[in-house]
Order: sequence, then C-alpha cells, then structure tokens
Amino acid sequence: MKLKQAIIFSVAILAGGACLAQSDVKEDFKPSTLNQPGQLYPQVNSQGYARFRIVAPYADSVKVSLGLGGRGGTKLTKTGDSVWTGTTEGPMDEGFHYYHLTVDGGTFNDPGTLNFYGSTRWESGIEIPAHDQDFYALKDVPHGNVQQILFPSKSTSTSRRAFVYTPPGYEKDKSKKYPVLYLQHGWGEDETAWSNQGHANLIMDNLIAEGKIKPFIIVMTYGMTNELKWGHLKEFKVDSFQTVLVDELIPYVDANFRTISDRAHRAMAGLSMGGFETHSITLNKPDVFSYYGLLSGGIYTPEELGGKTKPKLIFISCGSRENPDRVNDAAAKLKDAGFNVVSFVSQNTAHEFQTWRRSLHELAPLLFKD
Amino acid sequence: MKLKQAIIFSVAILAGGACLAQSDVKEDFKPSTLNQPGQLYPQVNSQGYARFRIVAPYADSVKVSLGLGGRGGTKLTKTGDSVWTGTTEGPMDEGFHYYHLTVDGGTFNDPGTLNFYGSTRWESGIEIPAHDQDFYALKDVPHGNVQQILFPSKSTSTSRRAFVYTPPGYEKDKSKKYPVLYLQHGWGEDETAWSNQGHANLIMDNLIAEGKIKPFIIVMTYGMTNELKWGHLKEFKVDSFQTVLVDELIPYVDANFRTISDRAHRAMAGLSMGGFETHSITLNKPDVFSYYGLLSGGIYTPEELGGKTKPKLIFISCGSRENPDRVNDAAAKLKDAGFNVVSFVSQNTAHEFQTWRRSLHELAPLLFKD
Repeated sequence: MKLKQAIIFSVAILAGGACLAQSDVKEDFKPSTLNQPGQLYPQVNSQGYARFRIVAPYADSVKVSLGLGGRGGTKLTKTGDSVWTGTTEGPMDEGFHYYHLTVDGGTFNDPGTLNFYGSTRWESGIEIPAHDQDFYALKDVPHGNVQQILFPSKSTSTSRRAFVYTPPGYEKDKSKKYPVLYLQHGWGEDETAWSNQGHANLIMDNLIAEGKIKPFIIVMTYGMTNELKWGHLKEFKVDSFQTVLVDELIPYVDANFRTISDRAHRAMAGLSMGGFETHSITLNKPDVFSYYGLLSGGIYTPEELGGKTKPKLIFISCGSRENPDRVNDAAAKLKDAGFNVVSFVSQNTAHEFQTWRRSLHELAPLLFKD
Repeated sequence: MKLKQAIIFSVAILAGGACLAQSDVKEDFKPSTLNQPGQLYPQVNSQGYARFRIVAPYADSVKVSLGLGGRGGTKLTKTGDSVWTGTTEGPMDEGFHYYHLTVDGGTFNDPGTLNFYGSTRWESGIEIPAHDQDFYALKDVPHGNVQQILFPSKSTSTSRRAFVYTPPGYEKDKSKKYPVLYLQHGWGEDETAWSNQGHANLIMDNLIAEGKIKPFIIVMTYGMTNELKWGHLKEFKVDSFQTVLVDELIPYVDANFRTISDRAHRAMAGLSMGGFETHSITLNKPDVFSYYGLLSGGIYTPEELGGKTKPKLIFISCGSRENPDRVNDAAAKLKDAGFNVVSFVSQNTAHEFQTWRRSLHELAPLLFKD
C-alpha cells in the first residue's frame, strides 16, 4: 500500500498549491455542452477553466489528462466520501478538447461526457465556449442532412463507411447538381470527427443561411489511420487510401448523389494527417481535384506543384500555437510563383479542432467560386 | 483501508469458486465484434461466455455489470501487476448486451469496447454471436443510407434530430415513392439505438437483397425518455412526443423525402417504452398509421381498438424469457375479434436487442403488402 499512500500524499500537496493559484477563478461554472443528458459535470466557467467531478468511492488516485501545458493534466482530490473534484490550473484554449481519466492507474472515460473518436479510441470530450462559437451553433435555419453511406470497396474487400453532408434543399430541387469537398480527419480519428467534433454540417448550414457560400456536398470517410503509429507519419503510404478515395468512393458518390462530377467542382482538404493525405493525393492526381486545403497538415512548395495541372486554389492554415510562420512563408512563396493561395492562422489555438472549425469556415466561401 | 481489504478478500473467494465451475469453458475466445479498433478485450467464446480484461494497476476492486442472473455481474481478479481479468460464470444470451464497469466503486465504461446509448447514458456494449446473426450481417449487397436530419420543432423550440433509413436505389430512381415506418427506441435509449444496437439498416438491406420485402423508409427519432425515471412508466404522458411525431416530424419527412404520405403507407412500431408510445399514439391517431408494432412493449385489447379505424396489421412480440403467454393470449383475443394480428416470440432471449432485431426481421415483410 506504500505506493498508494505516496500518491495520495502528492495529490494533496499539488492540490493545495493549485487552490492558492485559483483564488481568481470565477465561480460561474456551467455544465459543458458536450455532457451526456442530465450530467452536471464536467463544467466550464466564463474564463475557460474546466472543473471535473468523478464518483469513485474507493479509488486512491483520479487524474484528468486535460490541463495546462498538456502533459501534467489535472489531479483531482477527494472532497467527500465518494467524490473526486478538481479544476484546471488555468483557462483552457477555446473550443473542443479530448481527454480521459486515469483512475488508480487505469485509463477510463469521464462518465459525464459524450465520447469522440480520437487517438484511435473513443475519448471524453469537453467544449470551452469560444468567443466566435456562433458560426458553428445550432440555429433556427434550414439544415442539411448528414448521411451514413456504405460503399463497396473491392480493394479492401469490404463495404466501407462514409458520411455525406447534403445541403438544405437537396431533397427538394431534384434537378440541381452540386460540387463536392472530400474532407479528411486526422491521425487517430475517423469519419465521424468532422461532424461530431467539427460541426462541419452546422458550419455549412449557417454559411448557406447567411448567403456566404454556394451550397456544396461534403464527403468524409476513414483515412485508414490505425495502420500507423503516432510519431511515424513519415512512413505513411497513401496508396491504399488513394485507391479507396479516387477509384471507389468518388465514382460511388458521383453515381449516387447529384454531383457535378468534374475536376473544376471537386475539392480535397484534410486536417493534420488528413492534410498529408490531401497533399500526396492532390499531387498524385492533379486532374481529379482543383481546390486543395491543408489544415495543420503541412504545406505545398512551388517545386512539387511545377509542371502539373494548376489548382484553382491552395488553402493552408494552422493555429497560432502551431507554426504559423511556416504556413505564411509557404503561402508567400506560392503566391510569388503565381499560385492562387490563401493562408489562415487561427488565433490562440493549437493543434485542435477549434483551429479546424475556423479553417473550414474560412475555406468554404473560397471553394467553387466560378 | 479495512473496507478495501474486505473487498479484495471477497473477490478472491468468489473468483476461486468461479474458476472451479468454469472447467468446461472452451478456450476459443475471440474479441467481441463491438470492440474499438485494435482492442483485444472483451472476448467471447463459442459457448457465449464473455471474458474481460481491464488495466487498473492500483485499483482494489473491478467488477463488470454483465453476468448470469443480471444483478451480480462478474467480479474480476487481479492476474498481474496491472491487469484484472474475469469470465462470466456461464454463457450469456445471444446478441447485444449493455454493461459497465465498477472500478473502486465508480461507474466507468470498458475502454475496450464501443459505447451505446442505453439507461440514459453511453454504456459499453458486447456482442454474443447468435446462430442467426446472418440476417443482420454486413454483406456485399446494395446498401441503403442512414441519414441524420435536424427537423424544426416549434412545440419544443428547437431543431430535433432523427435518423432516416432510405433503401438502396433511393437516390437513383428519382420518381419512386416509398412507405414509411416510424420506429421507436426504448427507455433510456435514443434515436441512435435502432441503427447502432439494432442494425435496422442492415436487416433492411439484407431483406431487400433477398427480395423478401418491398423497400420502405424507416424514421427513428428521440422519444424524450429522459423526462421519465425507470419504474415510473405508468406516469409517462405521450402528449408532447405525439405532437413532435405527428405534427412536426411526419410533415417534415413527407415534405423532404419521397414518401407515400397516406395512412395506408405509414406504420409505427417501438420497443419497450417505444411500444407504449406506439400503443398510445396509434390509438389516439388511428387515421395516421395503419400498421402497428409492439416489440416487448405491451399489447392491444379488442376493447380499446373498438369503434376506431381498423389497423391493417397488429404485430406483437417479445422474448421467450419475458412474458410470451401474455403476447400469445393477446394475439388470440385480437384474432377472435377479427383483427389481422401476428405474434412472434424470440427464442431464448430476454428484454434485449436480439429480441428486437428478430422482431423487426419478422415485422418488415408484413408491412405495406398491398
């Protein structure tokens, strides 16, 4: 039991320190919008602090992976017979964050919140209200639909899943055809990420309602990330996914949805590893897509684009807490080389979904302009 | 620490007893089909035993709610420095089961499996392979789509979510119109249940591929179950849900999908509490639906149906471990009174999803026959 006592002791010390530092924390905490129905915790205050409450009567240690600086997380303290509570040492960045619990050394999700697929597992999620959250809010506007399709994939000998966003009115005007954006998730995520974490459908619904974009379809499928371990992104071979996307999914979508099935009306974008995929596939297949988007997912150079069919637009973005200079420098070089390029830096966000929500919001109005 | 030591002690005693009883357990365990990608546990053997493996190095007690007899669950024993393992004392019923862990007194999900919304929370799920699992298997046949819609609801001042199954070919033949089944989940579940746990879409795809049914649309929405505590079903008032369903959802579906929008081509069915809702709403609105299905969700009597527009079909079902006599007796009385009634009893299943998958498989070919 010595180890357990040592853990309890260190928790008490750290929590005491944290309490002192938190004297300015505003006590206006409200349940996170991602909580399961009826669950009061986790909570978030107006400054962006997150507070957790976990019931584990006989546990010796409960830790939350979310916290300032990333690695340390937030250690909870036992504040009653059965309850562990704790508050982050400082405000978290705006937007969505994945997290999990460590209960007596085991990894579990917070039973208070919904789960989101990230890090190759369903993780807990929390939402820190953002000053610009209106652009992805659920509003009283016409809504598009998100539908699950199962498309045949000979190359992988199975039916594969994708989600297809069709804009409001798609079912009504049966003669209208639409351009298509193929939009990829990041490492460890799957085809649910852009709808669940990213609110891609609500971003589109709102932009369409405001008249800021022409409606288009978004297709989101699985980028086969699980074959790859984190830290080995350079070993990623895009071939098998390229076959699924270009030879199987695109023909299926063009056959089963009212698409404008030419290069001029087809875009590809992706976040993080999905950006790497977009980079490789657009360079390999320049006659398939004409709009390219890398969201925290690398850059293009004029050299690698040289001699190929020119894209109509290149969009490169990242969070200000990533490497914005690299993005801006790459954009400047592409511009000098005569490419139509737009770069975007999301302020005060890192390699997280708020960066990508904002990136989609910036990218969408630039697509399919002609 | 006395309580904790007592718990460890009792776990050891019980596990010892279980080990003796499990001498005939076949060691052909395989990962459950509902595991998260790459996860090896939980596992299931060919006899239907379930085996669990949880990492929790410093925990004093880990229990799984799933087990013989329901209440007791399965207590795990520490079999290494960090690992807790255990096997159910006997084979579980075929099909899907919800469960959760109790780790040092706290309720958590098994990090190895996918989560399913039941008991008003996202719970862990495990699948015991069934002898008849072929009818809901993912096969190389044309697949329909399941789409999320957000429909405006004035009565609840929000946009509400529903899932709509459209059969294969829906997008291709743009003149064809379809009948609609409104299909409700049970208490503590939500509009995701029939697709995720029930595989309603795959059941339909397979029946259509075999030519056993005429294609129809299925609409699944939230029955507002959270207002209600378990054990208080009799206090349930259907009015607010009836307004959402009949006055808001049905007109929205008829306006946005290619439906045959008359009574003769509209069915309602539900499982458990969804059956109670079906019972009430079909009796209140006999001119809206012409096919009624109660799946482990009560019965109709000739008296309550008397004097109303007659349904084309009444379908009543339950598992053999529920109260099949009540279902069969009710069907006999309805038949005597001149109603077209079909009853179905799912063999060797209880108040669980295998009963309802089989019920949908029996019900679907009976719908919209003319």
